[in-house]
Amino acid sequence: MTNTRTVFFVSDGTGITAENWGAALLAQFHDFEFDRHTIAFVTNVEEAHKTVSRINNSPADERPLVFSTTVDTEIRAILSQSDSLFIDLFDQSVPTLESELGVASAPIVGQAHGIANASKYGMRMAAVEYSIEHDDGQSLRALDQADIVLVAPSRCGKTPTSMYLSLQYGLRAANFPLVDEDFNSLRLPPSLEKVASKAFGLIATPQRLQAVRSERRPNSKYSSIEQCRFEIEAATHIFEMYKIPYVDSSTRSIEEIASVAMDLKSLRN
Amino acid sequence: MTNTRTVFFVSDGTGITAENWGAALLAQFHDFEFDRHTIAFVTNVEEAHKTVSRINNSPADERPLVFSTTVDTEIRAILSQSDSLFIDLFDQSVPTLESELGVASAPIVGQAHGIANASKYGMRMAAVEYSIEHDDGQSLRALDQADIVLVAPSRCGKTPTSMYLSLQYGLRAANFPLVDEDFNSLRLPPSLEKVASKAFGLIATPQRLQAVRSERRPNSKYSSIEQCRFEIEAATHIFEMYKIPYVDSSTRSIEEIASVAMDLKSLRN
Repeated sequence: MTNTRTVFFVSDGTGITAENWGAALLAQFHDFEFDRHTIAFVTNVEEAHKTVSRINNSPADERPLVFSTTVDTEIRAILSQSDSLFIDLFDQSVPTLESELGVASAPIVGQAHGIANASKYGMRMAAVEYSIEHDDGQSLRALDQADIVLVAPSRCGKTPTSMYLSLQYGLRAANFPLVDEDFNSLRLPPSLEKVASKAFGLIATPQRLQAVRSERRPNSKYSSIEQCRFEIEAATHIFEMYKIPYVDSSTRSIEEIASVAMDLKSLRN
Repeated sequence: MTNTRTVFFVSDGTGITAENWGAALLAQFHDFEFDRHTIAFVTNVEEAHKTVSRINNSPADERPLVFSTTVDTEIRAILSQSDSLFIDLFDQSVPTLESELGVASAPIVGQAHGIANASKYGMRMAAVEYSIEHDDGQSLRALDQADIVLVAPSRCGKTPTSMYLSLQYGLRAANFPLVDEDFNSLRLPPSLEKVASKAFGLIATPQRLQAVRSERRPNSKYSSIEQCRFEIEAATHIFEMYKIPYVDSSTRSIEEIASVAMDLKSLRN
């Protein structure tokens, strides 16, 4: 039997921090199904009371869990009166930090996911544009300005990983497919050789690659296990030859691939 | 005088939860500069001891702050011995949740940002592909399968918002530019009229739009204040006429725009 509990992520900002923070905790309780709801932008007393009503009127048998990231102390106080297990991020850690830093916190709503630093934010947006322009080898323009160049056979996860690196970390991530010519010559194409020091490789297991490719083009040479095996072996050979670090994306999420890539290419901070 | 403190985000997973959670807290302390470092994938005892050394040897005058999201209790115990203010996400809230849910947690590393649910993860990746294919009005194929269609004059933030919605929330987000023809007819193009119920509009202030456009094409008609004002007024008129909800993106981050859009289009959960 699976237990179901209702969960609310509540915030006076976007709710993104509450969702991520709460999800990390809930992931440690596998026997439950969590029915998740996000209530964002609870920015005034009226909204706070409406939120409390919604929590109190949730139809579940047991009281809901509420993960709150509410900076405004008045709103937080109202929310905490809801009939729920109420946990607030700021309640938990701000006092500890205040005592460590020797100052009072200065609550400002929406800092975590707002445009806190305009120039840094502008760089992130420019990085997204860069990554879209340089998706799938579409452009060689400004390839030398890439922070990282993802290289892989088709369908190993280059595109979403590039988008993630630019969107979350402001890295100019280009991505480049390896194609038949490369597999046969066992070399990087000349345009990529120049930026080999920025390259990061992705592979997959032949079985995984076959499954993903079959969704797109079933029963084709492209999705045959022989072709997938050939491409992965050739790509691995190329990566080894140019000393390009690489990971198997088969069992890794894009977040994990991005995180490993930043570590191996020394792109953190 | 600005105080500087060294901060480590430490995790046996990607470090993403630690970064977000810590950043939300640090954002409440404005008088400090935080020198941030992420140490991810601390997955064994040896790595844990190396991490402690790195923390203990950080050159700052005052002890570092450590935000840890370490599921493994043995590794967490080692990290907590570092000479730092050590706060762990799981230490803080897991006991409360265990008592509420009446079960012990079952610690599994990497749940928050791994491929926890393969079919959901596959949908997210498919959504990213969809959004790239439907970026900037490039494709009308499968436009009827969009969850949301962002519509705006050039340079109001359509593309990064679409990428964010697909990457983070698995929403198939198309985006479509409004162009001269639309501004003059004061109507949506016919291909968009069919999906008007899925449309969400973006505008900006003419001043902001001028600034952004000037970076790309300075001293052009495109970046003139008159043209920017004309386009914003026309776009607003179109949105009102078709009852398309819209926001001003000038002072909002993509996370905020995405969050408002999901609320107004009822796309949450």
